[in-house]
Amino acid sequence: MKENLALLTDLYELTMIQGYYLRCPDAYAVFDMFFRRQPFDGGFTIFAGLHPLIDKITDISFTQDELLYLESLNIFQKEFLDYLSKFKFQGDIFAFPEGSVVFPNEPLIRVSGRLIEAQLIESMLLNFINYQSLIATKTARIVLASNGGKVLEFGLRRAHGIDGAVSATRASFIGGASATSNVLAGKIYNIPVSGTMAHSWIMSFEDEITAFENYADIYPENCILLVDTYDTLKSGVPNAIRVFKKLKKKGIKKFGIRLDSGDLDYLSKEARRLFDEQGLTEAKIYASNELDEWIINQITKNKAPIDAWGVGTKIVTADKDPSLTGVYKIVARSRLGRMKPCIKISNNPEKISNPGIKNILRFYDKNNMMLADLIYLEDEKEIKTLVENRAPIRFNHPHIDYASFVLDNYDRAETKLEPVIKKGKRIKPEPKLNEIKEYAKKEINALDPTYRRLLNPHIYKVSISDKLKDLKQNLIKEYTYK
Amino acid sequence: MKENLALLTDLYELTMIQGYYLRCPDAYAVFDMFFRRQPFDGGFTIFAGLHPLIDKITDISFTQDELLYLESLNIFQKEFLDYLSKFKFQGDIFAFPEGSVVFPNEPLIRVSGRLIEAQLIESMLLNFINYQSLIATKTARIVLASNGGKVLEFGLRRAHGIDGAVSATRASFIGGASATSNVLAGKIYNIPVSGTMAHSWIMSFEDEITAFENYADIYPENCILLVDTYDTLKSGVPNAIRVFKKLKKKGIKKFGIRLDSGDLDYLSKEARRLFDEQGLTEAKIYASNELDEWIINQITKNKAPIDAWGVGTKIVTADKDPSLTGVYKIVARSRLGRMKPCIKISNNPEKISNPGIKNILRFYDKNNMMLADLIYLEDEKEIKTLVENRAPIRFNHPHIDYASFVLDNYDRAETKLEPVIKKGKRIKPEPKLNEIKEYAKKEINALDPTYRRLLNPHIYKVSISDKLKDLKQNLIKEYTYK
Repeated sequence: MKENLALLTDLYELTMIQGYYLRCPDAYAVFDMFFRRQPFDGGFTIFAGLHPLIDKITDISFTQDELLYLESLNIFQKEFLDYLSKFKFQGDIFAFPEGSVVFPNEPLIRVSGRLIEAQLIESMLLNFINYQSLIATKTARIVLASNGGKVLEFGLRRAHGIDGAVSATRASFIGGASATSNVLAGKIYNIPVSGTMAHSWIMSFEDEITAFENYADIYPENCILLVDTYDTLKSGVPNAIRVFKKLKKKGIKKFGIRLDSGDLDYLSKEARRLFDEQGLTEAKIYASNELDEWIINQITKNKAPIDAWGVGTKIVTADKDPSLTGVYKIVARSRLGRMKPCIKISNNPEKISNPGIKNILRFYDKNNMMLADLIYLEDEKEIKTLVENRAPIRFNHPHIDYASFVLDNYDRAETKLEPVIKKGKRIKPEPKLNEIKEYAKKEINALDPTYRRLLNPHIYKVSISDKLKDLKQNLIKEYTYK
Repeated sequence: MKENLALLTDLYELTMIQGYYLRCPDAYAVFDMFFRRQPFDGGFTIFAGLHPLIDKITDISFTQDELLYLESLNIFQKEFLDYLSKFKFQGDIFAFPEGSVVFPNEPLIRVSGRLIEAQLIESMLLNFINYQSLIATKTARIVLASNGGKVLEFGLRRAHGIDGAVSATRASFIGGASATSNVLAGKIYNIPVSGTMAHSWIMSFEDEITAFENYADIYPENCILLVDTYDTLKSGVPNAIRVFKKLKKKGIKKFGIRLDSGDLDYLSKEARRLFDEQGLTEAKIYASNELDEWIINQITKNKAPIDAWGVGTKIVTADKDPSLTGVYKIVARSRLGRMKPCIKISNNPEKISNPGIKNILRFYDKNNMMLADLIYLEDEKEIKTLVENRAPIRFNHPHIDYASFVLDNYDRAETKLEPVIKKGKRIKPEPKLNEIKEYAKKEINALDPTYRRLLNPHIYKVSISDKLKDLKQNLIKEYTYK
């Protein structure tokens, strides 16, 4: 969907940037995007939505029509609208690679540029990253629960609007889904599409067997029959067996059923037994019906012989926790030609932002498993030297003053924020969606299983460097003793 | 957003309609869209999304590019793709007026046409209606809780994708929101836009008072200052008072503050006192920060002097219940040239669909308050005669056999499903969004307050006519004794 999204913004971004244009048109600033709390009470988040966002940011421009609309609001001056008519984003953006495992309070995206342009993109940036990261994360949890099963995303009918469906499909593919029912998303993102029949197919024929036979005639390959319209074990599965035997005689080996109601644990075991008794060991069993990670986890723990899971509503609506708490905060601003760190004070210490221009080092052990993340100031050269020498490094708790530890058993560290836009231009071609998906899989595998638990996971440590801690404490003093 | 959405469908719709094309191209069918459960455990739902849906349905056509994509999937025959290349929706659609109050199990939309076309639009129809109805309903609950306050929708940054934001804004306006922060949605739907500043405005100036003064200089009219960046009562409100006094001297009377953290009940009362002591009785108090109907209800019950509520995440993500359970079921199909009712059987009696071509009568008392809804078969002429004579009518419970009552104290009844598309064409111009919003308000006011309660509301009765009950029971017997 190639559309210009210059107006996909909250009005206050525009009122603020007109203010900056009039008062400090040459100000520069740095903003961080981060989130404060893991969704679903989980142990990790998958960072998604970056590359579609980059496309939209580099495309921003205000059309005549849009400028006339803004003029009609009677709050913007002609001079400012002229400025917008020539607007192009020309800043720099650093970000985690899309598909990364990320944690609360670390910057996922860092935007530097004129205060005006860095402010303008806030709402769009949060819209893309909050939603796609949420859905990629939800899907990853469901894929983990399926214990190696295939997860198919079927959420279009319950998704939040057109793009709530299309971008959810992209994100769920990154999170580990194998295919989607959404044809439009399949076409746009080259994601495998999947689906055979609804109850209305069965009900539009005289009886179930006629409906099945007609379907198998038209689609002999990978024929998945929905067996619960009348009675799953007394009618659906026996009719499916008749059809599969005929298909097998023709040399076809890919077929199966979909269970869409009733007790999926019991029904899948009974259906498996009936198929196996008839020598139809190749018949696959798909399951659907309001599934989420908790139900799937319980069923797989019972060793139900389910090969694939159709998950709709609960993926695309991120059920139980439908928003990621991503925010976008100013962390530095130019004053008299120099960048000066900024801090947002709050009575709640967890809500005090980390000031300054920062990056993240992620530390790994010899087995490439993640150990801990350190947020540091980008100009702390000495940290890089310590890392090169595998020397011990102090990790400070981001807001509990006395809590810290020394990490010394690491094998290597990676710098996580990488440049993606320089002076308004994308600096590398967009990776293929499959590559992002593979990267996410590798990232999840680098997490100790204790961080991947569905319930009550181990909390991964994200700490701040000594210098960042000093800066933060000094700024807090400066504001609170004013 | 004028885009062709022919591919916004689940793959199984296309595999099924190719089957119908090959097996029964001349079959006709009728489908009902209905939902099974009130969202948010509430007492009513606002029906929304209809008119954007009508636009998309009447626009459906498959482009060359889309047909090539479908061909690449290797499951569609050339003959069928040729058929799709000429496809136009030519069926009839009846629906409740957009903005209506609706209840579980009654058809909200009835689609008649060739089986092929009625099936094709399922996924798109559910996507539009499920989401927009959900958001309109959530907003209506929040507006009721605000007890006459103004509700502003600020959800863009947490919405589910671009359209999750834009269509949420439309739906929340129908549900009673007064304005939105979303500029794109404001432009598309001509909805008032609202917003002034974020914390980053304050933080990009040397101090709070300078930030406030600069803002008031540029936007003297309706200047709403965000007062919680440093300390609401010690810094934000006193600085706002200095600014408002200057504005007042210039003859300006519209100004106020926004509280975005802390205890909104306490802070609003203190701020009100401080303003009133300084003679600034006209200063308005806006509140925001993860608000929903429960928090707002509690604060308004405490008589906190809040004039307007900025609600974001919890509106656009329909927090606590992020999907409406709308479904689309075949209820009649042509056989040998005659339409025959269909039924979907389930072990769960609540999930057995109401068969046949139906409409709804809504009964009102003399004060225009809703009494109960009756689902009946469209060819039951005798019911209309009873209504004209205000004669008693039996209301049967939709699935409990022995439960019924006779309604005889009604003043009038309205037929709810009205034609909106005839032979593929919209038959009336789209109402203005403001008219739909006014209609929804009238509808909510026609509900007894017991149905409007946030918690544990009275359950509005939706019953079936004697004839529909007979038809349903006969079809159930036909299938279960087969």
